Amino acid sequence: MFMANKNIFFAHSGGVTATINTTLSGVLTEYKKNKDFFDRMFIGCNGIIGAIEETMVDVSDWNAKAIEAVRTTPGSIFGSCRFKLKDPAKQASEFSRILEVFKTHKIGYFIYNGGNDSQDTTLKISEYCKANGHPLVCIGIPKTIDNDLECTDHSPGFGSAAKYLATSMLEASIDLASMSKTSTKVFILEVMGRNAGWLAASTALAPKPYNADVILMPERTFDEKATIAKIKSTVEEKGYCSVTVAEGLKNKKQEIWSSQKNNVDAFGHAQLGGVGAQLSQLIQKKLKLKTHFAIADYLQRSARHIASKVDANEAFALGEEAVKFCKARKTGKMLTIERLSNHPYRSRIKDTDLTNVANKEKLIPDYFIDADGLNINNACIEYLKPLIAGEDYPNYHSGLPSYKNFEISLVKKQLDAITHI
Amino acid sequence: MFMANKNIFFAHSGGVTATINTTLSGVLTEYKKNKDFFDRMFIGCNGIIGAIEETMVDVSDWNAKAIEAVRTTPGSIFGSCRFKLKDPAKQASEFSRILEVFKTHKIGYFIYNGGNDSQDTTLKISEYCKANGHPLVCIGIPKTIDNDLECTDHSPGFGSAAKYLATSMLEASIDLASMSKTSTKVFILEVMGRNAGWLAASTALAPKPYNADVILMPERTFDEKATIAKIKSTVEEKGYCSVTVAEGLKNKKQEIWSSQKNNVDAFGHAQLGGVGAQLSQLIQKKLKLKTHFAIADYLQRSARHIASKVDANEAFALGEEAVKFCKARKTGKMLTIERLSNHPYRSRIKDTDLTNVANKEKLIPDYFIDADGLNINNACIEYLKPLIAGEDYPNYHSGLPSYKNFEISLVKKQLDAITHI
Repeated sequence: MFMANKNIFFAHSGGVTATINTTLSGVLTEYKKNKDFFDRMFIGCNGIIGAIEETMVDVSDWNAKAIEAVRTTPGSIFGSCRFKLKDPAKQASEFSRILEVFKTHKIGYFIYNGGNDSQDTTLKISEYCKANGHPLVCIGIPKTIDNDLECTDHSPGFGSAAKYLATSMLEASIDLASMSKTSTKVFILEVMGRNAGWLAASTALAPKPYNADVILMPERTFDEKATIAKIKSTVEEKGYCSVTVAEGLKNKKQEIWSSQKNNVDAFGHAQLGGVGAQLSQLIQKKLKLKTHFAIADYLQRSARHIASKVDANEAFALGEEAVKFCKARKTGKMLTIERLSNHPYRSRIKDTDLTNVANKEKLIPDYFIDADGLNINNACIEYLKPLIAGEDYPNYHSGLPSYKNFEISLVKKQLDAITHI
Repeated sequence: MFMANKNIFFAHSGGVTATINTTLSGVLTEYKKNKDFFDRMFIGCNGIIGAIEETMVDVSDWNAKAIEAVRTTPGSIFGSCRFKLKDPAKQASEFSRILEVFKTHKIGYFIYNGGNDSQDTTLKISEYCKANGHPLVCIGIPKTIDNDLECTDHSPGFGSAAKYLATSMLEASIDLASMSKTSTKVFILEVMGRNAGWLAASTALAPKPYNADVILMPERTFDEKATIAKIKSTVEEKGYCSVTVAEGLKNKKQEIWSSQKNNVDAFGHAQLGGVGAQLSQLIQKKLKLKTHFAIADYLQRSARHIASKVDANEAFALGEEAVKFCKARKTGKMLTIERLSNHPYRSRIKDTDLTNVANKEKLIPDYFIDADGLNINNACIEYLKPLIAGEDYPNYHSGLPSYKNFEISLVKKQLDAITHI
């Protein structure tokens, strides 16, 4: 077994979630059970950048208490990154550096936890190392609050963000209803979602009458007239109207409708936000109604205090499974979740070739969207409902979740620092 | 005892909170214990408007289970209002109508739960009824997330909003730290607070390094140069910077700094919001750093799912005490909270004349603010800390807090409907 007693390199990638560390705690738990098989376990600082800069934390000796603290802490304990590796066919310096670091530190296993951009990175590293004679087991673990990964029923991180947003919509709509007689008539919640409206859709889960009355998702181009008409009739019927809008809402020319469309992130995607304010102004202008709007932003993906138990359990199990795949030398795969039943909800872990998921996006299908395009239907509710079930509270200290600050014990560098690659 | 066997009229006023219904459940609990003394208990629909429109709900026969559901439901179960009664010296029609409704429905006790504008309403009704020969016991119960009521150490509703905001800052800062190597460097949380910065200050409670590094409160005029310099040095030191900004932040001319300053609510106050986006743009422009911003809006005052136990307990006890005051025929008072000690935290209920609190505002005192005006000090932390202690989770159903929708059983109207007053 030439792979035995090699080290594991684990890294987070892309936007963090409330349960991305929960997956890591699953990895650590299974690693601890197999310390006779593997050698050390390293975590890259700031995701794959840790491999390029040779900055890695050795977590091999962490005890059960530390691993439990990892389980309930949001964000990424040693940092994630938005960093797209250059195409190795055009410029291989990043890949050759990663290979050098992996060889130097006897990395035989690479576990990468991220979204669709990140699965592309996993795939490329897998292929590069294979082509360059370094045997490396590469496993991708899904993670995204956007729930837009292909080949998996849903993605870890989404359920907790959905639970947070559905709860926020429920609570804010109760507030709105309380004030609507003399004050605010329309409440707008701006949520994340560049192309996929799953997060926006989750606000339909709040029980009636406190659900989102109107959901503006990126899967449907913004129809100003129909939207204003539905808000107007909803206010006339129930006295108030709750609206969810995804930051990636597009107009008929397929341009982002929000005002902040000129900032571009490291993946080349526009940095969004601002659509809530814009919609608020439009409603004030067209309907002369008082509006309020909230922007959930980072809060929706870091709210570990109201994580979904189903999401946390699945995130943990995927981490365990990734280590089992390493041991079994299954490589070039991303783990997936298959739904077995809704009543009761049951799922199991499967896998797919990385080529099937890299750089693809799963949007809300037409059969989940109402005919008017302004909300989701009961079939979508049935799909979403089990994913937010159950609570997984963190411990509290002095009135606040006691999230741990983990000590960094860096692996000794053996290579020259890179100046540029 | 000429007051015995008269009815109680209870109403909410002003912006709702996560624990305003908790106070109502305290009122209901104490009322049930004294049903031989009082006759019926009515709740005004949409606050004092219920008295004007003669729309009141009879809750006299609610059972313990319903009262417990009231305790953990945010918002106002039958609605609050933003409605300022006209000065009775200039136009007494609203007051004479309220008097007529109170006489018709044998209201002998008026309990009003609100902020500083609302205590003014309580005071005026108390004086008007006294001057017009209708004996009425009037008791004000404090409530405001802004914590700006005078004569009380703090106000119910604030502790829960502060707990929500401190938790949100903690979680979002962990997210920010995770991403800061390659992505966002500055996170901004926009919170409520027209003139008082207590809510903004509460984000300093998140444990270091995840506390708010910069807090822009309305008590200090916005100093662009100092703010940008502090954000810059913080990013240089720790790699990222978390900023809290109150919607009511003012410039040196004492004008609201945010862009949305032209909307005016029923109390004549400007409707605020938008300062987060404006600050975000300024930082991008001046420091060329990637920013993200969240706007908590209604979420901060309706987040019953993460209510403070201390806040909930005090809110409940104030409700009970108001009924005891009615029974003892103490009138023209607002209940207050006196802090007895911090370690352990202990408080007791006292009272003050309504004249002492009506239309006044308690701001953060200078001795709680850092010399640079960009954060609060340890003395303020000591003041705030006990108020967010303890959790008071609601029950959950299908993954969401099971807030109840209460059935409305309206008291039969006996007067002609008002056309206008």
